[in-house]
Amino acid sequence: MFPRNAWYVACLPDDIESGPLGRTICNERIVFFRGEGGKVAAVEDFCPHRGAPLSLGFVRDGVLVCGYHGLEMGCNGQCSDMPGQRVRGFPSIKAYPVEERYGFIWVWPGDSAAADASLIPTLEWADNPDWAYGGGMYHIQCGAELMIDNLMDLTHETYVHASSIGQPEIEEAAPETVVNGDEVITRRTMEGIMAPPFWQAALEGNNLASDVPVDRWQICRFSPPTHVLIEVGVAHAGHGGYDAPPEYKASSIVVDFITPETDTSHWYFWGMARNFNPTDQALTDRIREGQGKIFSEDLEMLESQQRNLLHWPDRNLLKLNIDSGGVQARRVIERFIKEETAAAEGPAA
Amino acid sequence: MFPRNAWYVACLPDDIESGPLGRTICNERIVFFRGEGGKVAAVEDFCPHRGAPLSLGFVRDGVLVCGYHGLEMGCNGQCSDMPGQRVRGFPSIKAYPVEERYGFIWVWPGDSAAADASLIPTLEWADNPDWAYGGGMYHIQCGAELMIDNLMDLTHETYVHASSIGQPEIEEAAPETVVNGDEVITRRTMEGIMAPPFWQAALEGNNLASDVPVDRWQICRFSPPTHVLIEVGVAHAGHGGYDAPPEYKASSIVVDFITPETDTSHWYFWGMARNFNPTDQALTDRIREGQGKIFSEDLEMLESQQRNLLHWPDRNLLKLNIDSGGVQARRVIERFIKEETAAAEGPAA
Amino acid sequence: MFPRNAWYVACLPDDIESGPLGRTICNERIVFFRGEGGKVAAVEDFCPHRGAPLSLGFVRDGVLVCGYHGLEMGCNGQCSDMPGQRVRGFPSIKAYPVEERYGFIWVWPGDSAAADASLIPTLEWADNPDWAYGGGMYHIQCGAELMIDNLMDLTHETYVHASSIGQPEIEEAAPETVVNGDEVITRRTMEGIMAPPFWQAALEGNNLASDVPVDRWQICRFSPPTHVLIEVGVAHAGHGGYDAPPEYKASSIVVDFITPETDTSHWYFWGMARNFNPTDQALTDRIREGQGKIFSEDLEMLESQQRNLLHWPDRNLLKLNIDSGGVQARRVIERFIKEETAAAEGPAA
Repeated sequence: MFPRNAWYVACLPDDIESGPLGRTICNERIVFFRGEGGKVAAVEDFCPHRGAPLSLGFVRDGVLVCGYHGLEMGCNGQCSDMPGQRVRGFPSIKAYPVEERYGFIWVWPGDSAAADASLIPTLEWADNPDWAYGGGMYHIQCGAELMIDNLMDLTHETYVHASSIGQPEIEEAAPETVVNGDEVITRRTMEGIMAPPFWQAALEGNNLASDVPVDRWQICRFSPPTHVLIEVGVAHAGHGGYDAPPEYKASSIVVDFITPETDTSHWYFWGMARNFNPTDQALTDRIREGQGKIFSEDLEMLESQQRNLLHWPDRNLLKLNIDSGGVQARRVIERFIKEETAAAEGPAA
Repeated sequence: MFPRNAWYVACLPDDIESGPLGRTICNERIVFFRGEGGKVAAVEDFCPHRGAPLSLGFVRDGVLVCGYHGLEMGCNGQCSDMPGQRVRGFPSIKAYPVEERYGFIWVWPGDSAAADASLIPTLEWADNPDWAYGGGMYHIQCGAELMIDNLMDLTHETYVHASSIGQPEIEEAAPETVVNGDEVITRRTMEGIMAPPFWQAALEGNNLASDVPVDRWQICRFSPPTHVLIEVGVAHAGHGGYDAPPEYKASSIVVDFITPETDTSHWYFWGMARNFNPTDQALTDRIREGQGKIFSEDLEMLESQQRNLLHWPDRNLLKLNIDSGGVQARRVIERFIKEETAAAEGPAA
Repeated sequence: MFPRNAWYVACLPDDIESGPLGRTICNERIVFFRGEGGKVAAVEDFCPHRGAPLSLGFVRDGVLVCGYHGLEMGCNGQCSDMPGQRVRGFPSIKAYPVEERYGFIWVWPGDSAAADASLIPTLEWADNPDWAYGGGMYHIQCGAELMIDNLMDLTHETYVHASSIGQPEIEEAAPETVVNGDEVITRRTMEGIMAPPFWQAALEGNNLASDVPVDRWQICRFSPPTHVLIEVGVAHAGHGGYDAPPEYKASSIVVDFITPETDTSHWYFWGMARNFNPTDQALTDRIREGQGKIFSEDLEMLESQQRNLLHWPDRNLLKLNIDSGGVQARRVIERFIKEETAAAEGPAA
């Protein structure tokens, strides 16, 4: 169960360049396409004529044409035309609020009336020439909450990512978690350590020495419904760590948009935004490749964990201090669902 | 749900040349084989000894020998022998009425007592030297009723088969549907149009000009339980269309035997019978190859449609004029099922 | 349903050399690994921290380290340490009695208190320089009881293994079955026959003529929970058959440890122990290869039989004289399950 009255990343602009895209989000089968004027649109992936998926069709003059018998579906979910038919009485299908912003397509799977584009999170690094961004997407067979747990407890880096970003000092530094309204923040700092391979490469990518002690930080920020943005970086030791001037550090933001497909699967949009050498495309590509490999290491673990939890549905899990970020994030999610349900039942309830 | 007291195409003679064939039809697991004198036989695919599939065995002297322990099964479903055993008291398994006719093996999955070989449809083009036939079979993961809908509404050709037999004029010509007893006929004609690529090739295959206006027709005939035969063709315009003399036209019969496997899958026997140049085997092969490609274009659409309908089981579909053939065909099927059920409950009911 | 208070073969020593092994046995998800001093250990494959499979971790200093966040699990199912945590109050997971003996790892999936290593069957041919052993393992999608049936009725050799060990004389020789306490023995002898190909090769492997009449025997011994050991061999005719002196025969023991995974799948550990030319490793390899091919011939039959039985769950199977071994073996299994259930309910019940 996840909030439905919320903005989720649905896909990338590239995914709908050549035609419509069918994708299930929060158990809703949705087709995304570019409607009139190229504006992105989203409706149920179900042709009201005979139930064919509209995503097998094509876009013509801003309407989505069903690939089975040619029904023309408008961006509002109303049939606009069909060869040889009067369509005025045709049943509508659900249209979803959808926005293109920051290089992502965002969708609101719940109550359209409640949709408000201003609720899309502000991404200061996006569309900003001082920053560069690279990323990708994985389709993962586990519930979104397991990925949130994963990202709010980076202790796992020492084990799952031992050869790249993991190092023993991570688990020796206890994290601190605070809840700030709807946001959950888990913070960990390590001082005077040697940088692990990924960060050595990042220092070198910023023309900094990589063989000297550094201060390292990880600041994980969960925000509803299921987003996690993580400030990560290293600075040459003794220059202020997170607050060190730019010439002493390599830092970036790990971007994680975790979009539920079903209760036990999700679309994982991952990436990294950095504000050093932003015009170096080769560096962007190298970082994306490295991050893609690292993040793929989580897949087997998370999917196996999901199968285990389905096998043992009644077993309690431990909630240690390192799990506090995930635990608090789940509480925020549960509160959102409860508020949503109450709102749906109306004021009388 | 489909009628069970009816003849379905089960397989082709080739399928049982080298040994028995196991195939599920109307949810019945059946093994087909050549019994005494090469006559085709069909019994449950279940050895009464230990439940092994008899289709993993072999045929010896007109009996089917179980490949596990050698039980010999007769064409009547009675065990005829077993090494070292007295088989008189062995339980029988169900034997199915089965006939070889017109180059197909036909099976009657329901009540044997009601089986009547004269109910097998008459195929005038089969075993007829004036005609040639070529075809194939696809195993499709959707209910047979969706394939019937598909074939009784050829409007889809414009979209699904745009590069071969589709053309805009199809959807501009409204079809007419009539019900004639158990038969449902949907007819569409187009006059003075240019032939689409498949029909241009057919005209050329009949040594006719392909770059002149033609009259085109499609006459879809559904007959119970789930057969659809479609008269299709083009004639040089102005010579009478469907009734034009042979020297002005290229016409054929699209053959569709749609055999339910389960409620959401079927065996699709497709082919084309033509009465021009019947001895030109290369032409037969070319037409079969082209038809095979065209009919494979329906697969993704139909299987996706089935998944959508299972996801939204309660949603009503539109029944437009173009759907009338499929709608009427489903009514005939439902009537047959109802009559069958009433007959099974006996006169008292 | 299978007995749980019993020793099953879980895996081979090689399977846990390089790291832990996750394997489901009797519906229990278990991880096997080498603990302190290299002694084999087995615990639930579930990390009490967040439910990750411990089998994705690694062994360090005799404890199993979870590959997700580093929880250290001891051989007793108690967490021994975790970075930055006090683990004293952590919940334990189930530890399974496990023994390494005769070249196999044995596990007791049921009540630990009832486990007694002396109940592991004695294998006189193992760890014995007069004998050689070679074998393998197959993962088969059918219930263990179908494999026991298969091995207690070797009539199937004539059909399933016609080209190697099958011969018509098998089905002409009626087997005799006796129940001896918990053991079920099915015996068949054939006199003055020609050896089939596999046994011709075995005679030659023992430097004996293969083109002379032989006496052949098969003595299948079922013992609980699900083990089948089969004495098989041929002797030059007229020298006493099974009791012939070694210089006239080639004989061996077919080893079948059949370990349930779920109710409809099992791990099949097969092999052959022989006491002629025991130091001839090339012969051992040749026999293993031949046996591996022969035993793979059963797979399709058994898995198809399982699917058939699931399709027709209420249909009775025949219990012929040839099935007596399997029938009696199932009775022993059922008695064991009943006794186990009664014991679990306690003396008051």
